[in-house]
Amino acid sequence: MTAFDPGKPDGANQSLEIGLPNGGSPELGRRYEIPARCGRAVKVQRGQSLKVINPVGFQVCDFWIFNTEDLNEYSSMEHLHTSLLSVMPKVGDGIVSNLRRPLMTITEDTSPGVHDTVIAACDHARYRQLGVEEYHDNCVDNLRQALLAIGHRAPAIPAPFNLWMNVPIQPDGRTAFAPPVSKPGDYMTFKADMDVIAVMSACPQDVTPVNGEGTTPDRLEFQVDAA
Amino acid sequence: MTAFDPGKPDGANQSLEIGLPNGGSPELGRRYEIPARCGRAVKVQRGQSLKVINPVGFQVCDFWIFNTEDLNEYSSMEHLHTSLLSVMPKVGDGIVSNLRRPLMTITEDTSPGVHDTVIAACDHARYRQLGVEEYHDNCVDNLRQALLAIGHRAPAIPAPFNLWMNVPIQPDGRTAFAPPVSKPGDYMTFKADMDVIAVMSACPQDVTPVNGEGTTPDRLEFQVDAA
Repeated sequence: MTAFDPGKPDGANQSLEIGLPNGGSPELGRRYEIPARCGRAVKVQRGQSLKVINPVGFQVCDFWIFNTEDLNEYSSMEHLHTSLLSVMPKVGDGIVSNLRRPLMTITEDTSPGVHDTVIAACDHARYRQLGVEEYHDNCVDNLRQALLAIGHRAPAIPAPFNLWMNVPIQPDGRTAFAPPVSKPGDYMTFKADMDVIAVMSACPQDVTPVNGEGTTPDRLEFQVDAA
Repeated sequence: MTAFDPGKPDGANQSLEIGLPNGGSPELGRRYEIPARCGRAVKVQRGQSLKVINPVGFQVCDFWIFNTEDLNEYSSMEHLHTSLLSVMPKVGDGIVSNLRRPLMTITEDTSPGVHDTVIAACDHARYRQLGVEEYHDNCVDNLRQALLAIGHRAPAIPAPFNLWMNVPIQPDGRTAFAPPVSKPGDYMTFKADMDVIAVMSACPQDVTPVNGEGTTPDRLEFQVDAA
């Protein structure tokens, strides 16, 4: 068998062609779009803030953070759970890495604060299991392509921080995929604690109601603001 | 800065010297000990069963499973949550990989079934944060050493399946470290769905009550039985 290569996409979409120039460097204060079903990566320097905007309200954002200096250090949900003693990050919480260092801190959240930190990003294998036979856009390929588009390869597929994704956990451990409770225009702001590359995927899930009931996966927006 | 190398231990203990012969091959039906604060790895062939035994009852086992053919495929708690729609695996559940394939299936669990799948394995950085200044044995180094002891390197540090670890999750997402509810002699059995390397660490955590209140980290045992 061929060894699994975390950096290699299983398929392709527009994500590969919409990389920001100069290795992912944003124009400060400019609003960028993440097209529906796609992913984009952006460099955020220490002290700068990244605002992730949900224009339609029901759109989930799979979110990852990498240390710009060493992509082997990245946001880790299992370390975050230990750090926060919670599976539900909120304003003031630092998103920590697999080396237990804060990468970015949540400074604003206009939504009711329901986000997911326990579910894997959707991928090629997931859609196969859901009965989709042809290639389906997926968050893991969006992560891979968004990094390739700015000159990097994903060294691993970390567990994502799923902004606005609603996965209630019952006392007996059972979970469910429920529609988001966020509203149009909700946004979250993350202040960088070190130089990072943030990757956002507008989740293309349209088989389970992760992105709402009776809705179609839609765009997201983001901007980076000065320190 | 030096790039992070997931395979390199931060320190050493006896784990490096107690590798099973022939690349981790067990004698079927023989009981092996995992000394207190140490880790061991064992090959389990498809159809064979691994029994993990908790002689003292309060001892947590950090548990990982790797595909013998490609160690880049390994047990993934975030994919498990998606697969089970639960954060609490039970008898009959398959422990899936980052490629969403079942590696081993839980066939027996004599404990009340309280285990953890959301908390990271303890590591050097964790004990530093808990105020321990000298080197402290830790589950991540036990994983690394247990693999080195049978001729492999950890390609990543996957989130662990923490057998008997009691981390209740409140409806608002808050968690806590509570003493295990398992009793002396409890065991869990895992039947291999493919050829795997299972790694077990007798968690050396003695700062938080993960391994009981007023107790000292203790040994675990395991055996592999024929198909």
